[in-house]
Amino acid sequence: MRKPQLTRAEGLPERVTIYEVGARDGLQNEDAIVDVAVKAEFVRRLVDAGLTTIETTSFVHPKWVPQLADAAELLTALDLPSGVRAPVLVPNERGLDRALAAGVREIAIFASATETFARKNLNSTLDEQFAMFTPTVERALDAGLAVRGYVSMCYGDPWEGDVPVEQVVQVTARLAELGCHELSLGDTIGVATPGQVIDLIGALGQAGVGVDRLAVHFHDTYGQALANTLTALREGVTTVDSSAGGLGGCPYAESATGNLATEDLVWQLDGLGIRTGVDLEKLVTTSTWMSTHLGKPSPSRVVQALAG
Amino acid sequence: MRKPQLTRAEGLPERVTIYEVGARDGLQNEDAIVDVAVKAEFVRRLVDAGLTTIETTSFVHPKWVPQLADAAELLTALDLPSGVRAPVLVPNERGLDRALAAGVREIAIFASATETFARKNLNSTLDEQFAMFTPTVERALDAGLAVRGYVSMCYGDPWEGDVPVEQVVQVTARLAELGCHELSLGDTIGVATPGQVIDLIGALGQAGVGVDRLAVHFHDTYGQALANTLTALREGVTTVDSSAGGLGGCPYAESATGNLATEDLVWQLDGLGIRTGVDLEKLVTTSTWMSTHLGKPSPSRVVQALAG
Repeated sequence: MRKPQLTRAEGLPERVTIYEVGARDGLQNEDAIVDVAVKAEFVRRLVDAGLTTIETTSFVHPKWVPQLADAAELLTALDLPSGVRAPVLVPNERGLDRALAAGVREIAIFASATETFARKNLNSTLDEQFAMFTPTVERALDAGLAVRGYVSMCYGDPWEGDVPVEQVVQVTARLAELGCHELSLGDTIGVATPGQVIDLIGALGQAGVGVDRLAVHFHDTYGQALANTLTALREGVTTVDSSAGGLGGCPYAESATGNLATEDLVWQLDGLGIRTGVDLEKLVTTSTWMSTHLGKPSPSRVVQALAG
Repeated sequence: MRKPQLTRAEGLPERVTIYEVGARDGLQNEDAIVDVAVKAEFVRRLVDAGLTTIETTSFVHPKWVPQLADAAELLTALDLPSGVRAPVLVPNERGLDRALAAGVREIAIFASATETFARKNLNSTLDEQFAMFTPTVERALDAGLAVRGYVSMCYGDPWEGDVPVEQVVQVTARLAELGCHELSLGDTIGVATPGQVIDLIGALGQAGVGVDRLAVHFHDTYGQALANTLTALREGVTTVDSSAGGLGGCPYAESATGNLATEDLVWQLDGLGIRTGVDLEKLVTTSTWMSTHLGKPSPSRVVQALAG
């Protein structure tokens, strides 16, 4: 495998934390149920490839996401080495109960930046979603858990179109005040361009949510994910969400292309001399293996190029 | 169609010239011969979509690229409006003769930055290629033509691996001295990352080849094309090569994914408020139409998302 040439560009961090979402965000968009043993093997391979922060599953009600009904079983099957963080998504207090029973140490909650998506995804208004989050986060913090807050539809919404920056800032700031240690800014439908990324990160800083608490989560639906990620790194962000093999589309977008592929991200970061701890070759092998299980090719450009 | 939100990011140009390569660089990589009438219709549709610089064909010997054996016939079939530039690729003096006979006003020559690719593509050494270019360019300039110089394998070579920056600078500077008004820096196998882009543009500036004479030509083989293009824009480049629908792979790379798709580029530039004159909707329609003719889906993320 050709290694990209090492060249450090000015104004970029020395190290980036990759928050790997393939096992949860990726697989939850797959219709065909993946066996729990395959999921466990997938996570083990991700760890072996050097990923240290892996969102493994979701304690959402199995009725809504049948693919992840095996959340507790998966966590039992995993025997992760110390040093690997394995957060899980938790939609509400009932999910938190299940996560606590499974011995989870980190959770993530999933908020909407728009009214319409809050209604469609959470069956609540923009305000009401906090009635659900507040007790969940408070109890999680009391139990000593770390809580990440996802903010979805930050740059555009399929029903509302443009989303005012102030609205995204308000939702993000409320999650920060609730006690979320990290806020992940999601471009759920993949429409963002770099100017919007700069604007949002700047507005959040002015509202007191510093760049050290931010993660970025871009979708590659319109091919913009990596350029937006690079822009966020230049603005000081050091945590990037991505999905091995580009697993997972957004069911609300018109295209099957979803999450930024971890391989495409690592190619860029390796080339820039930015450390991630990830072994690209092992990761490509893992995504190729997973893509065989799913019976469809990976949308990752790097996986396509190297596994072809 | 959702229009991306307009946000101008600092340090970027107000306007970008898109140098459209789909009709030549894209189609020359297609095995099945496309009818000349379809090619002419393709170029007409590109013009109608607002593209004003369109490389239409190549006067390479038909033995090497049978797909473009109809170069003279295509130019006769085109009746382009004034204001549209229609350069053609010319490999040598024999090609120049054919181009002049066809009434061409602009040509491009294709140089290699590496020994191995010079040998494989031009059957010459790195030095010897200039023996071919020098009389071609001199005669073209004497005839009042504008000459663009392509430099290929600027950031990596499939046989040699890394390519020293000084070597790329030397080849580019020689083309500039020969009288090429524009130098297009090609990442022929798509391996570059942003630090290398900054380094090369900086080194060229120090060698007297200013950013106003540069164009960038990135391939999306490893998903890096748009992030690299954004980086080049920040360094002051204002001419970007791209291919409608992402037409054209590099026959020397392992993946089918080749040229940066014009649609993915325009999505980003539209979102940044950078003018290109291109109507994205018309362009997507054109690429979808062409992809039907070629019998395979466009690799452009934007085309996939909007035409799906």
